[in-house]
Amino acid sequence: MSDSLRVTIWNEYHHEKHNPAVSAIYPNGIHAVLKDGLAAHDFSSIRTATLDEPEHGLTEQVLADTDVLLWWGHRRHNDVDDTIVARVQARVMAGMGLVVLHSGHYSKIFKALTGTPCTLNWRDDGEKERFWVVLPEHPIAAGLPPHFELEKEEMYGEPFGIPAPDELVMLSWFKGGEVFRSACTFFRGRGRIFYFRPGHETFPSYHDANVRRVIANGVRWAAPTLSEPRAPANVRMPALEPLG
Amino acid sequence: MSDSLRVTIWNEYHHEKHNPAVSAIYPNGIHAVLKDGLAAHDFSSIRTATLDEPEHGLTEQVLADTDVLLWWGHRRHNDVDDTIVARVQARVMAGMGLVVLHSGHYSKIFKALTGTPCTLNWRDDGEKERFWVVLPEHPIAAGLPPHFELEKEEMYGEPFGIPAPDELVMLSWFKGGEVFRSACTFFRGRGRIFYFRPGHETFPSYHDANVRRVIANGVRWAAPTLSEPRAPANVRMPALEPLG
Amino acid sequence: MSDSLRVTIWNEYHHEKHNPAVSAIYPNGIHAVLKDGLAAHDFSSIRTATLDEPEHGLTEQVLADTDVLLWWGHRRHNDVDDTIVARVQARVMAGMGLVVLHSGHYSKIFKALTGTPCTLNWRDDGEKERFWVVLPEHPIAAGLPPHFELEKEEMYGEPFGIPAPDELVMLSWFKGGEVFRSACTFFRGRGRIFYFRPGHETFPSYHDANVRRVIANGVRWAAPTLSEPRAPANVRMPALEPLG
Amino acid sequence: MSDSLRVTIWNEYHHEKHNPAVSAIYPNGIHAVLKDGLAAHDFSSIRTATLDEPEHGLTEQVLADTDVLLWWGHRRHNDVDDTIVARVQARVMAGMGLVVLHSGHYSKIFKALTGTPCTLNWRDDGEKERFWVVLPEHPIAAGLPPHFELEKEEMYGEPFGIPAPDELVMLSWFKGGEVFRSACTFFRGRGRIFYFRPGHETFPSYHDANVRRVIANGVRWAAPTLSEPRAPANVRMPALEPLG
Repeated sequence: MSDSLRVTIWNEYHHEKHNPAVSAIYPNGIHAVLKDGLAAHDFSSIRTATLDEPEHGLTEQVLADTDVLLWWGHRRHNDVDDTIVARVQARVMAGMGLVVLHSGHYSKIFKALTGTPCTLNWRDDGEKERFWVVLPEHPIAAGLPPHFELEKEEMYGEPFGIPAPDELVMLSWFKGGEVFRSACTFFRGRGRIFYFRPGHETFPSYHDANVRRVIANGVRWAAPTLSEPRAPANVRMPALEPLG
Repeated sequence: MSDSLRVTIWNEYHHEKHNPAVSAIYPNGIHAVLKDGLAAHDFSSIRTATLDEPEHGLTEQVLADTDVLLWWGHRRHNDVDDTIVARVQARVMAGMGLVVLHSGHYSKIFKALTGTPCTLNWRDDGEKERFWVVLPEHPIAAGLPPHFELEKEEMYGEPFGIPAPDELVMLSWFKGGEVFRSACTFFRGRGRIFYFRPGHETFPSYHDANVRRVIANGVRWAAPTLSEPRAPANVRMPALEPLG
Repeated sequence: MSDSLRVTIWNEYHHEKHNPAVSAIYPNGIHAVLKDGLAAHDFSSIRTATLDEPEHGLTEQVLADTDVLLWWGHRRHNDVDDTIVARVQARVMAGMGLVVLHSGHYSKIFKALTGTPCTLNWRDDGEKERFWVVLPEHPIAAGLPPHFELEKEEMYGEPFGIPAPDELVMLSWFKGGEVFRSACTFFRGRGRIFYFRPGHETFPSYHDANVRRVIANGVRWAAPTLSEPRAPANVRMPALEPLG
Repeated sequence: MSDSLRVTIWNEYHHEKHNPAVSAIYPNGIHAVLKDGLAAHDFSSIRTATLDEPEHGLTEQVLADTDVLLWWGHRRHNDVDDTIVARVQARVMAGMGLVVLHSGHYSKIFKALTGTPCTLNWRDDGEKERFWVVLPEHPIAAGLPPHFELEKEEMYGEPFGIPAPDELVMLSWFKGGEVFRSACTFFRGRGRIFYFRPGHETFPSYHDANVRRVIANGVRWAAPTLSEPRAPANVRMPALEPLG
């Protein structure tokens, strides 16, 4: 299955063009580094799309050709067109996988899919984050050590304003004293959604080998299970048994 | 707690004014009969609100004075203003309970809170529905027999396009051969949501004693647990431990 | 992965030797027909084991060579040795998959893994059972129609005394008026457990193509996700950060 | 309801009699301090029971008179008689609440109810533990601040070998670098189970006001919802609808 998996990486692509500290880490954009991280895997295609392209790069055709979509956004969530959000949501309902990264937790699409405000505590001082695997047997944790660290990351702290995740795969410990549900899955419609916390634009987290492994695992895990997408529908049913 | 519980019943109130078969059963509207059904309980107030009132009867003040909101809609879901939907959703996030009845499954507010299309199979031929209690110990099932019947109801059949409910309280059996998750709970934000299936406008289901008991139980169950509503918020946190 | 999947089918193998009505349907035992049903799939080995063999056929070596174990028992649950039950449970904790069939719901191993009495209502008059797929996108439902029927089966009805399943894949409708959660998954330890309802010994359900498909899907789904089994363990950890 | 709530506190009561460091903190036993902590609440009775009493103090009559049982054990889990474990489990199935404290995670009763080994990482060097409320709206979190600390506690770290909790109420952060799901609920049979992490015998955690509040909240939350206990049972059902 996975060798025919078509991936699209969506990035807001704003900070990289306006903040030298960010472009030093991600000169061609976060999407480019995410693409590099997936390149070693046997996905059949990996394309990218960004906010300022027509239709944000997410045309009907692009989505029809996408099995799993990754989403990174931060500053310009409100500039994402509601029509495109609805289009992505409809595609998830029909079976497309979605991997939401870091501040994508506050995107229109993640809020629409969870039905909640997705609020949290935060601090961007750059501090150690340690990930603990809660479900070692989960495919998203395949190949990971029991814990791993990022030396500098933004802190996200509980309470995280989401519905109870369908699966809780990892928790984060922060040097400054907080904890966070940092790898969560959600099943919505026919689609699978994976939220993964790290990736503040001023830190090189998407160059980290463990982070890359989790994202690749997440893409595989989120791949559609149905042989072809099928949108849920209302159907008037004739009775199968006599009503009389 | 419950003796200070303030309830608002929202009804689209359309069929009752346009279909004699419906007005015969609900001459003053479905909301009036739902109110009768709750009157025997010690709620401190029970008010009603309908679609054609200004702001659909759901002003900021009304919602601020509501602990649990009931919702019945069917034909005119699209006439509900998006601003009011967002207002109700925000209030659920802050802790207000919501009881969604029957075709309210397809309302804007239920879709927004679940993030899914809420599709299902249906047939309105009028047939026997039997409810089976799956969780006898759940407060929503308090006082119910192991099963009860409605002689004539619309059929709703699986697959029901919702997220996995946080709790599955009852299942329905239909004479024509279908099954349905007919009493489901969802926790979203600080609020509790209860979906209960029966109540097609052409059948007298809201006059039924067991149905009334479930709705009253559901209202009590959905009551806010926080002493005062508190909307989730993003907060920048100073470090609790030294970062150095 | 699945082409190296090693399956063991465990059967009490009692009714088939003592009841002509059963042996007419399952002359070489229920396990033999289950094996036939899996034969078309690319599992690397399919062996069987039965109650009256030494150690019930479930030696340490057999379990070490088993990726997924199927379990059918009914009359002689109490004759299963507690030592063997503990051995199977330990192996599930380490990652082995377990598919529990029909009256296996009342086996020592299923009760031990769920922590509950697994009680239910029942009636063995032989009546139509209709299965409805609740999660069409679940791998266990792959290739199934929206619903399928068995003309004669034993009835199992709610309330089913189990913990809330981690996933509810199918519901059953019975002609006599009941409903049942008939395809449920549970994650316990590193292992995956799938319960599937049909298979009373006096009816030919394990000859049915849809039932066979579900069982094969369930075996694949329950396959270990870890590259090698790993039992959970208590570990004394040195501090990763300074405690002073 | 709560004013008629009958509580029994069970304690292994071993360390307090053999380790001066423990008896200095809990001179009359951990159970005595837990009882003090609940005394301010309007429970109708609070009794205690300990391992060395006949039947461990948990006779049929005592359990019949108990709505919620607290459990603390550590060194002598294996000395608890299997008959008493089965008796407690049966009573939970019928609706009795159970609050499992600290090292009670490794008791026979908790393992029996979860079906899992309940393993974890640990370190008893005495270090800061910080509790974060994940579900502020949960009754168990009523009256708590967003986070609170214990200056010295034993560390328990993930992965915690339990089934996914039905609700995750709090997470713990440890100075030494670990995280833990430290307040979890489980629904089993008709009973409610609450696991709460802190309480190593060499630290005064059960004198802490926030810990006491959580335990009192947990007792209230775990109280039976059924008016009288009712064990799940197998029932042969006559058909409700014609089978012909």
